[in-house]
Amino acid sequence: MIEINNKIDYIFYTNNTPNTYKIQLILLELQKEYGITFESRFINVFKKENYSDDYIKINPNKKVPAIVDQTGEKPFIVFESVSILIYLAQKFNTFLPDFKTNPLENSEVITWTVWQAANLGPAFGQYFHFSFFSPTVQEYSLHRFNNEAQRILRLLDDRLSSTYIGGNEFSIADIASAGWLLYLNSAPLYNATKERFPNIFKWLDLINQRESIKQVNQSISDGFKNFNPSLLRALFTNDPELINAKAPIGIENVILKYD
Amino acid sequence: MIEINNKIDYIFYTNNTPNTYKIQLILLELQKEYGITFESRFINVFKKENYSDDYIKINPNKKVPAIVDQTGEKPFIVFESVSILIYLAQKFNTFLPDFKTNPLENSEVITWTVWQAANLGPAFGQYFHFSFFSPTVQEYSLHRFNNEAQRILRLLDDRLSSTYIGGNEFSIADIASAGWLLYLNSAPLYNATKERFPNIFKWLDLINQRESIKQVNQSISDGFKNFNPSLLRALFTNDPELINAKAPIGIENVILKYD
Repeated sequence: MIEINNKIDYIFYTNNTPNTYKIQLILLELQKEYGITFESRFINVFKKENYSDDYIKINPNKKVPAIVDQTGEKPFIVFESVSILIYLAQKFNTFLPDFKTNPLENSEVITWTVWQAANLGPAFGQYFHFSFFSPTVQEYSLHRFNNEAQRILRLLDDRLSSTYIGGNEFSIADIASAGWLLYLNSAPLYNATKERFPNIFKWLDLINQRESIKQVNQSISDGFKNFNPSLLRALFTNDPELINAKAPIGIENVILKYD
Repeated sequence: MIEINNKIDYIFYTNNTPNTYKIQLILLELQKEYGITFESRFINVFKKENYSDDYIKINPNKKVPAIVDQTGEKPFIVFESVSILIYLAQKFNTFLPDFKTNPLENSEVITWTVWQAANLGPAFGQYFHFSFFSPTVQEYSLHRFNNEAQRILRLLDDRLSSTYIGGNEFSIADIASAGWLLYLNSAPLYNATKERFPNIFKWLDLINQRESIKQVNQSISDGFKNFNPSLLRALFTNDPELINAKAPIGIENVILKYD
C-alpha cells in the first residue's frame, strides 16, 4: 500500500524523536545542496500507528524513521536511521568519504556512525525510558543507564578535541549523534553542562550554524514548550508537587539527580 | 604502543563474547578465501584489561573487538564490530554487494547489519546483564529486555522465511547476528526452541556447515562447559540450591522463566 507519488523523491516516515531528526537533517541538507524533494508522514507512536499492517510493510522493525526512495524504477524502502544515513550518503557521495578512494577516512566515519547506533542511541534511549516512562522508579536501572550516558558523553567530549566526530569534515557521524545531542541546546539533560563537556558544546555551537540544524533545533525547542510534566516523574520523585503538576513547567527546572 | 608485526596482516583484539565472534568469523572466512593472516590477542575484561592506557589507544570505547590492519603504510585501527565488518567487506569486496553496481542489495545488507548493532545486540546484551550479572534481581528490567529479545527473535524468524538475513547470499548481516545466535546451538537461551522459531533454526543448520562457524561453535560449546553457575542467579531465584551451587551445572538446566 505504499502510495507512490512520483512528483516526490522521498517519502519520510517520521515523528519528533531523536532517530527521526537524523533523517530530517540529511534530507534538509540534500534538499539544499541537490534540490531533492521529500514529503514527511507523521507516524504517531503513542497511537501505535507504527504497529499497523500498512506500516509494518514499510518497516518490519515497527519503528520510525523509514524512507521510501521513489527516484528509481520501483519504490525502494530503507529503515534503521543509520542505514538510511549510509544509503543517502553513498547515493549522493556526500558526508561520507568514498571507500575506493579514501578507505581510512570512510572507515573512521562509519566507525563513529555505527558507534552512535550501538552505544549512544541504546544508552540514551534506555536512560529516557527509565527517567520519564517506566511506570515505577527503577533505581538500579536508572543509575545503570545514566552511568552509561555519562561514559558516552565523556568519550565524545574527548573525541571532539578535533573539530568533527568522524574526522575533519562534517559527516553522517555528526548527523547521527546530533539527533540526540541537539536536545542539549534546549535542556540540561544528563547534567550535561558546558563546564563538564566543553568540547561537545563547542561542536554544538559550530553545527548550530547550519540551516538544517536550526530547523531541527526549533522543533526540539517547540517540543520542550509542550512537554507534559507528568512524564518527568522519575526526575522528581522527591517532590510530590512536581509529580502531580498539571501545568507545564519549564525544562530549566529539570535537574538530573543521578551523576 | 601498537606492536607492529609486518608478518601478520591483522591484529585481532578479542575475548570469547558475541561481538568478538563476529570478527573471528569474518577473519576465518578471509583467511580461507584470500589467505590473510591474523593474530588474536585476548583482552581479559574481568581483569579490566580493556581499561588499560594501552588498550584505550586502540579502542577509546574500551570494548572488544578491535583490529589493527597492518597491510598498509601505517597500522590502521578499526573498532566497533559492525564497523569492522563493513570495513573488511568493502576492502575484500565480499559478503556485501558493491553500492556502485548494486545499491539496493548493498542497502539491504547494511540495513540488517545495522539493525543487529542497534537492536539485537543492545537488547540481548541487557538481557544477559539482567539475567546473569546484575547483583540483585531487577524484575521490571528483566521482563523489559526479555520482551525485547522475544520481539527481535520473532522478527528475525519472519525475516528468515528467505534464506539469509541480508538477502539471497550469505553476508555480513548473517555474520553480525550469528555472533549472538550461534549460542542457540548450545543452549536454549531466551526460551528459543526450534518449535517457536523454526526459520532461525533452519538458518542455523545452513550456516553451521561453514568451517568458520564450526570453529566458533566449538568455542561457544567449550565456554558453556566451563560456565560458572553462580552467574546464573537471576534465572534460578526460586531455587536456593541452584543459586548456591558450587559445582558446574549443565546448561540444559537453564530454562528461562520469563516469556
